[in-house]
Amino acid sequence: MKMPSRVKIVDVGPRDGLQNEKQPVPAEVKIGLVHRLQDAGLKEIEVTSFVSPKWVPQMADAAEVMAGIQRKPGVRYSVLTPNMKGFEAALASRPDEIVVFAAASEAFSQRNINCSIAESIDRFAPVVAAAKAKGIYVRGAISCTVGCPYEGEIAPERVGMVARLLKQIGVQHIGVADTIGVGTPVKVQRAMEAALQHYSIDDISGHFHDTYGQALGNTLAALEMGVWQYDTSSAGLGGCPYAKGATGNVATEDVVYMLNGMGIETGIDLDKLIDAGKYISDFLQRKPNSRAATAILTKREG
Amino acid sequence: MKMPSRVKIVDVGPRDGLQNEKQPVPAEVKIGLVHRLQDAGLKEIEVTSFVSPKWVPQMADAAEVMAGIQRKPGVRYSVLTPNMKGFEAALASRPDEIVVFAAASEAFSQRNINCSIAESIDRFAPVVAAAKAKGIYVRGAISCTVGCPYEGEIAPERVGMVARLLKQIGVQHIGVADTIGVGTPVKVQRAMEAALQHYSIDDISGHFHDTYGQALGNTLAALEMGVWQYDTSSAGLGGCPYAKGATGNVATEDVVYMLNGMGIETGIDLDKLIDAGKYISDFLQRKPNSRAATAILTKREG
Repeated sequence: MKMPSRVKIVDVGPRDGLQNEKQPVPAEVKIGLVHRLQDAGLKEIEVTSFVSPKWVPQMADAAEVMAGIQRKPGVRYSVLTPNMKGFEAALASRPDEIVVFAAASEAFSQRNINCSIAESIDRFAPVVAAAKAKGIYVRGAISCTVGCPYEGEIAPERVGMVARLLKQIGVQHIGVADTIGVGTPVKVQRAMEAALQHYSIDDISGHFHDTYGQALGNTLAALEMGVWQYDTSSAGLGGCPYAKGATGNVATEDVVYMLNGMGIETGIDLDKLIDAGKYISDFLQRKPNSRAATAILTKREG
Repeated sequence: MKMPSRVKIVDVGPRDGLQNEKQPVPAEVKIGLVHRLQDAGLKEIEVTSFVSPKWVPQMADAAEVMAGIQRKPGVRYSVLTPNMKGFEAALASRPDEIVVFAAASEAFSQRNINCSIAESIDRFAPVVAAAKAKGIYVRGAISCTVGCPYEGEIAPERVGMVARLLKQIGVQHIGVADTIGVGTPVKVQRAMEAALQHYSIDDISGHFHDTYGQALGNTLAALEMGVWQYDTSSAGLGGCPYAKGATGNVATEDVVYMLNGMGIETGIDLDKLIDAGKYISDFLQRKPNSRAATAILTKREG
């Protein structure tokens, strides 16, 4: 039994979640969310993305958000830096970790970041080298590791190939992402196994979207392999850009509820986490996209 | 690896789902749902409940619904019969299977069926005997096997005790139900293990509510034990009477999507299943409460 006794959750809501929101969210609300997440016990938060505001207007306030956070000791603040320009802009914000994004699907790479997988790796190489020179930890996210909206199913070998390329340029940790939520337990395990050929179990995380309701099953499947790090999104922030109206990132609340029930430690206070999700959901004028949060909030209201 | 290669789904939407709907659903719509479910490949459908219309007005048309179904060879039609009066009323409808409901929680038994667990077993005994004398298969549903809205957590020993009592009166199959959806994978496995002390793996099914978003993880956990029969509800019909606004039965669509992805055979056509869920959801003037159905319907609409 490889099931871990402790799990680290990285809340990606402020970045991966809010990035997909049409409604502009002011920097102070983003900062308020980060503060509530760290108060709830999150030990890593993916805060923002240093990317052209032309492509992602919601992240135009990246520097302002990073500057406004009252950092809590022991918490890591990560930011996306897709290229050297983004990395240089991010430096003044003193991120603990930077994230580069590659895809396991050639078509997705072309459409999402406008270059081939190989070209994306070439583009990341100097970013990784510069980050490591500054002592900043580097995470590589691999998108579409199970399925792609353009190519359909993705072979595990593709995941292995991208993991190998990221390893070659010095990326220290990889996230195996089911970007469109089409994965199911066995397929997710195959993708993880491919990643594990190049990274140790301590340097891999799972990132599952709940578009088809599969994220908790996939999380359980990965837990059973010993994977103990997961990206999740407070209140299920994010939605799915490839199926409007469908669900995006799995809700942090649902994952923490499961782990609590399994006796797996996260260090997260579920009630405070639900407050954090309610804070941002209230701002967005909707209900949290989390079944656990919905059930618990309903019970609170009596 | 005990993972089954084939799973049997019992769609309980027409009964367990619609029972909790406030809005009256005409018999012809219920019949229309049953017809669509059997066309989609469901091999067992929990159609209705022969219970006092004073308690469950939505099921007052039980005989009419059963009479209106154009039965398909190879499909089993089950009905709830909580007592001899219900059983006698059901007989003319020629059910293939009857279902009696016991609870693993004393408080839930008292509040839900107004008698102790032991009294409920005494009440079921003549029903079971009468059914078996007529050659009708008997399933026993055990509610609150993981948690209870009044007692909180339920010890696996309670599940084992109720399973033993049901076995003693001749019940042929038991369903291990997480009625309020509070279960998580390990707890569900403990409840299943307790049930397996009295019933073989072929005579046990899982019945998981998705109130806290845990149902697919719990299904995977049970699959890993070899459990190959599950109750689910088309379009996630049902809601949760103990947390209004929260989710009830797990959606058949979400479970079938997972099983398809895992290469586990169900004999169910997911597209037709989604049509069935859309049919009843359209009648109820809402969206299907299924993430897989939502994603697939959204893609269909382009």
